[in-house]
Amino acid sequence: MPTATGQRQLPIGIFDSGVGGLTVLKAIRELLPHEDLLYLGDTARVPYGTKSNASVINYALQASQHLYGRGIKLLVIACNTATAAALTTLQDHYHPVAVLGVIEPGAKAASEATRNQHIAIIATESTVQSGAYEQALRGYNPAITLSSKACPLLVPLVEEGWLSGGIVEEIINHYLQPIFAQDHKPDCLVLGCTHFPLLRTAIENVVGKNTCIIDSAASMAHLVEQHLQQQGLVNPQQGSGKLQILVTDLPNRFLRTANLFLDQEETLAAVIEQVDLTHSNIGA
Amino acid sequence: MPTATGQRQLPIGIFDSGVGGLTVLKAIRELLPHEDLLYLGDTARVPYGTKSNASVINYALQASQHLYGRGIKLLVIACNTATAAALTTLQDHYHPVAVLGVIEPGAKAASEATRNQHIAIIATESTVQSGAYEQALRGYNPAITLSSKACPLLVPLVEEGWLSGGIVEEIINHYLQPIFAQDHKPDCLVLGCTHFPLLRTAIENVVGKNTCIIDSAASMAHLVEQHLQQQGLVNPQQGSGKLQILVTDLPNRFLRTANLFLDQEETLAAVIEQVDLTHSNIGA
Repeated sequence: MPTATGQRQLPIGIFDSGVGGLTVLKAIRELLPHEDLLYLGDTARVPYGTKSNASVINYALQASQHLYGRGIKLLVIACNTATAAALTTLQDHYHPVAVLGVIEPGAKAASEATRNQHIAIIATESTVQSGAYEQALRGYNPAITLSSKACPLLVPLVEEGWLSGGIVEEIINHYLQPIFAQDHKPDCLVLGCTHFPLLRTAIENVVGKNTCIIDSAASMAHLVEQHLQQQGLVNPQQGSGKLQILVTDLPNRFLRTANLFLDQEETLAAVIEQVDLTHSNIGA
Repeated sequence: MPTATGQRQLPIGIFDSGVGGLTVLKAIRELLPHEDLLYLGDTARVPYGTKSNASVINYALQASQHLYGRGIKLLVIACNTATAAALTTLQDHYHPVAVLGVIEPGAKAASEATRNQHIAIIATESTVQSGAYEQALRGYNPAITLSSKACPLLVPLVEEGWLSGGIVEEIINHYLQPIFAQDHKPDCLVLGCTHFPLLRTAIENVVGKNTCIIDSAASMAHLVEQHLQQQGLVNPQQGSGKLQILVTDLPNRFLRTANLFLDQEETLAAVIEQVDLTHSNIGA
């Protein structure tokens, strides 16, 4: 089925509670440099990981409505908490336009990487409580053993820019020691929150180099590429894709933290805009 | 001027970004047990300390509007960040009904406690950036030396229930060491965030017993008592005042954390209700 050129040229929408989804944006940008990207970070209401499913679904619907209102060809939920709480709702709401969540590709990569069939997952409180990773993993291999741990302090740690050093490793160790001190310990650790890839070195220092660390950003980018190819939605234009960033609070704090996520490679100040989602009119 | 009995019997409204203001509620409840209290925690949008002034003013107006709509005789802003950002706006908006913020009584208590005229303040990022404590302190004593430090990690630390132990003291030390390693070090430390009193023992272990620690909850309660007496607003009824709690996200997480703040003395589940502030209609 041919797809209209206009639709192919629309940006990919990427939605996150704040700045963490930039790890996903970066992976998509590296793999698909010709695609335009429209990123929305809900910085006025971040973090999502400690809020109820009902609130997160409400926020995710408002954000998606805004992105679809501007015109996107695909929506990527680059936030594990929002994926766990709202993916099914969003997929129902926007059918037949695709909505991809960050949990499925992470779970797939982990199920392929593990050798001893024991996987550990660290995430926010609500992602862990949702059981979404467990459900996705069991879809690939019902026999997998899963050890999951909510690590609420790691998000503010990253937002604060504390990425290495003794205190950081002690906090990580406090969370992971009970899992990795087992005899049959996991050989694979899923970073089930888009903030966590910034702590990768510190996490490796705690769990050891023999543990395979899965960061869903790269897997997500490959899923996006595959989806665009299958649906005939690859942007036919050459050259670098455009980047636009939307935030719901003032941009200054986002810009400061964004540098941690993007290796200071982008000049975001020129492409950032503040938007108000609270007056979105969501159909039932 | 006589005040109508109906007005005297109205509750005192207490507003906070989340659960931290319960330290203020507790102090008011201990000093004024006959007063009814109506507490609103904006748990759907917590934390405020990393958000812009404009967003915090908007949230504070919505919350206050809701509390005044239910009927209160006095509004207490039990959140340092909201006080720093929004107190003047709220006082203008609700004049002649009084709005009391938590910064003024804390600054007064600190200015009276210091002997060497060097005061340290720890608070959220936006409270520190606002310079509100500095301004309030200089009103009492223009010659005071002030050392202030934003400590963003301490709020999630308390919310996570990490109140003591090596990691907690290391984090506190990381923030405070530069201030307290000075030759002319402060003799008084203001806990400029309503979460911080829960870390009091750990903070004392870091700064030493000789540093006077000011927690504005007690000072705030005395200011409330003084205000009610001066305005003829003391509740004439005897017996225990009623307590009602409003939250903007689902109550379960609030209830769990609230126990840390109230020494598990209250049964809050029976008096908690979820409200939606986003449709408040705020006059300009």
